[in-house]
Amino acid sequence: MSVQVNDLSKKENENNSKKTFKVIDTDVHHDVRSTHDLLPYLSDHWKRYITDYGWKPIKTVPFNQVRKGSKYRADTFAENSPPGSDFDLLKKQLLDENEITYAVLGGWFHEATVANGWFEFAAARASAYNDYTIDKWLSKDKRLLGSITIPRDPVEAVKEIERVGSHPQMVQVMMSVGNFYWGEPQYHPVFEAAHRHGLVIGMHLSADISVSGNDYLRYYVAWRSAHPQAYMNQIISMITNGVFDKFPDLKVALIEGGFEWVPFLMNRMDAAYKGLRQETPWVKRMPSDYFRDNMRFSTQPWHDISAKHLLNIIDMMGTEDMLMFSTDYPHWDFDSPKRTLPPQISKDLQHKILFENARDLYKL
Amino acid sequence: MSVQVNDLSKKENENNSKKTFKVIDTDVHHDVRSTHDLLPYLSDHWKRYITDYGWKPIKTVPFNQVRKGSKYRADTFAENSPPGSDFDLLKKQLLDENEITYAVLGGWFHEATVANGWFEFAAARASAYNDYTIDKWLSKDKRLLGSITIPRDPVEAVKEIERVGSHPQMVQVMMSVGNFYWGEPQYHPVFEAAHRHGLVIGMHLSADISVSGNDYLRYYVAWRSAHPQAYMNQIISMITNGVFDKFPDLKVALIEGGFEWVPFLMNRMDAAYKGLRQETPWVKRMPSDYFRDNMRFSTQPWHDISAKHLLNIIDMMGTEDMLMFSTDYPHWDFDSPKRTLPPQISKDLQHKILFENARDLYKL
Repeated sequence: MSVQVNDLSKKENENNSKKTFKVIDTDVHHDVRSTHDLLPYLSDHWKRYITDYGWKPIKTVPFNQVRKGSKYRADTFAENSPPGSDFDLLKKQLLDENEITYAVLGGWFHEATVANGWFEFAAARASAYNDYTIDKWLSKDKRLLGSITIPRDPVEAVKEIERVGSHPQMVQVMMSVGNFYWGEPQYHPVFEAAHRHGLVIGMHLSADISVSGNDYLRYYVAWRSAHPQAYMNQIISMITNGVFDKFPDLKVALIEGGFEWVPFLMNRMDAAYKGLRQETPWVKRMPSDYFRDNMRFSTQPWHDISAKHLLNIIDMMGTEDMLMFSTDYPHWDFDSPKRTLPPQISKDLQHKILFENARDLYKL
Repeated sequence: MSVQVNDLSKKENENNSKKTFKVIDTDVHHDVRSTHDLLPYLSDHWKRYITDYGWKPIKTVPFNQVRKGSKYRADTFAENSPPGSDFDLLKKQLLDENEITYAVLGGWFHEATVANGWFEFAAARASAYNDYTIDKWLSKDKRLLGSITIPRDPVEAVKEIERVGSHPQMVQVMMSVGNFYWGEPQYHPVFEAAHRHGLVIGMHLSADISVSGNDYLRYYVAWRSAHPQAYMNQIISMITNGVFDKFPDLKVALIEGGFEWVPFLMNRMDAAYKGLRQETPWVKRMPSDYFRDNMRFSTQPWHDISAKHLLNIIDMMGTEDMLMFSTDYPHWDFDSPKRTLPPQISKDLQHKILFENARDLYKL
């Protein structure tokens, strides 16, 4: 394949950057105002852990310093509610101001998925969070699409997919990326249930993971630099365990993990497969084929990258269908749909990244 | 910068591929015939662990299957000696047949570096191995260059660098990549000692590392796909801990970790640094500057990669100085200097990768 850099004049660039594209935002973090928002959806037994026993979600990364203030965009704090928890503010700041056609909510409740032990309470929290999402978010705006939070226990995860997987605005099952490999056989029933319901698998890093093995790297800036490795390992695990051979139509959205490393991993895995495929005879195709057919990658956090280098990367991917725009609202490193993509790339490619690739993935 | 693909006719390609370039091989694994080869260089106390107590190096990766037979090139087995342990055979198969000008020996005795606990014995083994390398290898052929094996204990590591660092054929200190981060402050004296002796730091993966955190991925093909992450994390650790600010002239050779991922990590770290540099104020330059000025990457295992994509990657690196050819003799995935680089790239660039970049790094 061959992709071209448009050699635009400055004026044309400005015009192009002002053009309005339809936009799907594939990474939005809605939130609860507090854990008390879950109480209406929990049984009395589990309610007491919040009302009487002071249960709190596990602390995330061991870094005090992200940005001055916090990890949020400074203007996303509303009175008495943390960023992302006020529907009206999210509607105004994200959907209306950015003319978003659809936004895929991922929530923050990955913690139910990566929670160790006590899977029963995690399953109850995941269900409550899904009910909260349907009740307080999806019902209010047709532009909002949901991700099903699941517990790590695959039996309970399948039950939850059966329970809410047919909701018309639920488009994916969120497999939070924690310290275990989703490709392992014990999780295949979860892929099967998602696949049967026509749901995409979303994968998003949980903050509660050291990423790089061993201890946490010492700084947030270091941890963040290592962050994409967690996604690489889930991909390696899914491919080598034959997930895409069992479920050839399954689609996986890798959210907030970057994409500049994708051509490297495609080529690395192809080379390994050529020399060593006798080890995993259930893997029938070249690894890079699964990338192209089964995986999509969200774009935020966008790094400074020239049009030329972006097109190099897409050329090495071998397809223009792999990238999907995202904002990561309400986090500090929000990407605006109006200012992120280099305007020198073709309008067709901009439209694919901003809209079409996600529309096709989520069948919108 | 801009790099060009030569549009060669088939005939010119053939001619070009037959051209003889000078070659430095930056990744060769010499070996001991058995641990008994170390006995002449150990004190009586430590000798007994080998002769009487049956000490063996720790088992490496938990995969039984690499290639049919073993992890070695089939023709590198000599009678009564494992691949890489027979000087005459290595001389013939590697140096003479491939017209190698210099070969940098890395050995296999990283295990002394990554050994947990019992650092005293590890220090003795590292010293014995260095003496063995000088005595049985470097003294036999001026084309052979050595890497200093060190124990993980930084105090003993510094002593070992002081002891053998002035040997004229010792060109680098080998920091074996294990389950810890060399950039951490407790290891800075080791960088200081290497720097003071004008030695390069070599980094090579130890087999005894899960790479991806948590458990080992289930297959060798998966582990191998994840393998470069161990190098990424050492780089992240060195940069964020300010190693290259303390030792601006320090050079690090990242051996057998691949290179296609390098532009991604340069850009990822630059983006993280731009947003978060207040966290590590001792880091004074853009991370990508340290890559270009302080790091070099060996090329084996070479993946199928077109001249065009290779030049894309070099263009994104921003320099032609970063890559150094290597064979990984005597391993199964040996790369021949005559058949690896795509002949469509310029002769100048081939010469840089095959020879000049390593010559400049090791001051040969």
